[in-house]
Amino acid sequence: MLSEFLEKTKSESPLIHSITNYVTVNDVANIILACGARPIMADEAEEMYDIVSLCQGVNINIGTLNQNSVKSIELALKRARDLDLVRVLDAVGAGASRFRTRTCLELIDKYGFSIIKGNISEIKSLYNGCQTTFGVDANENDLLNRENLYETISWLKKMSCKLDLAIVVTGKSDLVVCGDLCYLVKNGRQEMTKVSGTGCMLSGILASIASVNTESIADAALCATCVMGIAGEMAFEKMNKYVGNASYKINIIDAVSTLKGKELDERANYECK
Amino acid sequence: MLSEFLEKTKSESPLIHSITNYVTVNDVANIILACGARPIMADEAEEMYDIVSLCQGVNINIGTLNQNSVKSIELALKRARDLDLVRVLDAVGAGASRFRTRTCLELIDKYGFSIIKGNISEIKSLYNGCQTTFGVDANENDLLNRENLYETISWLKKMSCKLDLAIVVTGKSDLVVCGDLCYLVKNGRQEMTKVSGTGCMLSGILASIASVNTESIADAALCATCVMGIAGEMAFEKMNKYVGNASYKINIIDAVSTLKGKELDERANYECK
Amino acid sequence: MLSEFLEKTKSESPLIHSITNYVTVNDVANIILACGARPIMADEAEEMYDIVSLCQGVNINIGTLNQNSVKSIELALKRARDLDLVRVLDAVGAGASRFRTRTCLELIDKYGFSIIKGNISEIKSLYNGCQTTFGVDANENDLLNRENLYETISWLKKMSCKLDLAIVVTGKSDLVVCGDLCYLVKNGRQEMTKVSGTGCMLSGILASIASVNTESIADAALCATCVMGIAGEMAFEKMNKYVGNASYKINIIDAVSTLKGKELDERANYECK
Repeated sequence: MLSEFLEKTKSESPLIHSITNYVTVNDVANIILACGARPIMADEAEEMYDIVSLCQGVNINIGTLNQNSVKSIELALKRARDLDLVRVLDAVGAGASRFRTRTCLELIDKYGFSIIKGNISEIKSLYNGCQTTFGVDANENDLLNRENLYETISWLKKMSCKLDLAIVVTGKSDLVVCGDLCYLVKNGRQEMTKVSGTGCMLSGILASIASVNTESIADAALCATCVMGIAGEMAFEKMNKYVGNASYKINIIDAVSTLKGKELDERANYECK
Repeated sequence: MLSEFLEKTKSESPLIHSITNYVTVNDVANIILACGARPIMADEAEEMYDIVSLCQGVNINIGTLNQNSVKSIELALKRARDLDLVRVLDAVGAGASRFRTRTCLELIDKYGFSIIKGNISEIKSLYNGCQTTFGVDANENDLLNRENLYETISWLKKMSCKLDLAIVVTGKSDLVVCGDLCYLVKNGRQEMTKVSGTGCMLSGILASIASVNTESIADAALCATCVMGIAGEMAFEKMNKYVGNASYKINIIDAVSTLKGKELDERANYECK
Repeated sequence: MLSEFLEKTKSESPLIHSITNYVTVNDVANIILACGARPIMADEAEEMYDIVSLCQGVNINIGTLNQNSVKSIELALKRARDLDLVRVLDAVGAGASRFRTRTCLELIDKYGFSIIKGNISEIKSLYNGCQTTFGVDANENDLLNRENLYETISWLKKMSCKLDLAIVVTGKSDLVVCGDLCYLVKNGRQEMTKVSGTGCMLSGILASIASVNTESIADAALCATCVMGIAGEMAFEKMNKYVGNASYKINIIDAVSTLKGKELDERANYECK
């Protein structure tokens, strides 16, 4: 039951350290609180060791990555790896600049992650970058469709096995891939793309839930992905009509904050692929 | 019809790069989405070339300007100028510190802008800085009133012609000046001054709408200014009574997000001066 | 009457400069507006002198402290001290890293503050750091309870006298200590801990109200603490049922923004200790 993963998060209230972009950082803090964990944000290199030593999980989001934050991210990941903490990477904009792609690849190579999250283009840019010998066609249409679904899942599984981490691909449907396991998650709504930060919020939930469910990262990632998608659905239903993207955001965070385990289990809509 | 400018923004979904202050950055991202464009924020110098190359417009806001961001702003503007992209400057706090005034003047001089936005004091500090020979009286009352309106419009037109850009002056009434053209916009509500970031949001809308209407910057700027003012009015009407500035902000972003072209054309309240 | 302190803030509209964390900075800006003051945020060292020279109060929050912001904080505090402006320190995470603890102690020593705010653990870490000869037991339970209340108040009074500032300790009940005076404030709700930034918002209110009531810092601090607690209560009552932490935050800021002096005086719930 997915609800067990969420309930464990609420009962254990893990402290999650996020180095994330300054665009959606407040939403990330509030969504971490909403799913039962506790947020801390810090980006000064000198205090990374002390701060991470207090935490149960680390959430790295490169949305506004810069040279200074790279130093702090490295120190945070080093300490987190030494403590065997869950480490999540939200690869925002990987592929959009060489700086982001290269930094992601270096972080993956040097420190490893428990979960990497991105849209299909971001994940593919990392796949191409770190596994060029697989020869993924750079010109193929990135969006998932019936034709490319199985091929996409195939390279995601290879990537997951090679890098020893779970991969969450967000899109119209989401994919949660861990080794040879793949879930296709159908929760969520298209309107979520009109709210800045829904992806960043998912990363916060991923780190929160996975941090206290380290023995089953794949299911924890599935749980987090369903929580976010269901929150998007419930938030939409709560508005009698769509009143706008700012209200929708508030309702999404609210929905995570009040989601019952029973609702999560009943509404989770996924299948194995 | 102003609605055509907004509808073109929604249909073309331009990607707008903002280097903006960290106070209101989330609201800027959500208002860019609300008016139909797509936001990206990045401030690392190394990736400015790559990021701007993907974009249709650049929005610079100096609300929390610092030495690092100046470097990135320069690189972003350089690339945007080379690509002939719309470039908007929100001169937050120009005149409040010598650092901000000087930086604005240097950016204007070196890279040029399509639109500069500020309150009357901010714009005047730039006017004084770059055109001291016009002898604007530093002691005159900054606020627009019947007595100084025509004199103010006169120096704004000179400034617009000299710098070859449109100027948007926000206040109780807003002014949109482009060359010898001047619109006085009466949309908006006084309560908007109790919400942090309404000016920053306007800049995001200006960059979004202007980026896909480059052949008519003045009308695009007029459209954006009306959109923001009308959103302030509609948000206020939606609340049965004024319940506070946080709800008001949410309602303003919502109003932009759901504004119909017909409403925009019907409610736009401006005249040529 | 506490309402006089709030009403003076609304009538004088002081300009408050905040150097604060980028997580909750937008909420701080909006709460400063909500209580009648005007916010400005800037963190570039070069402009600290100019910016602070325009202000009536300075609000320092170390939530995402880094090496660069320390430089600007020092320059801001130096200028504020020279101008005899109210200076508030929100010691977020003092004790969580040696960097934060040390920086706080240095700032207190070099520039002095009007008010320091933190939870009991943060304040105690500063007390231990700066007054180790008082021998506070590092192992004692930090949370206030009947057993340790009087002992806690005792060392807070010593600390307040020694450092010549007011201390606001947030928790289930809040303490406002100034010299030999101590108020125990019972306003507020436990659900406020599920909203990121309620503490940071309190600091913004503290700086706003204290900046125009410098002759009675203790009562200004009491007023601010009651305002925040009452806002938490009124926001909760406004929701027919608890709908989530994002709505709750909006309602809290709204409540400050619409709080009447009469409600403040009627609902303020405190006693001298």
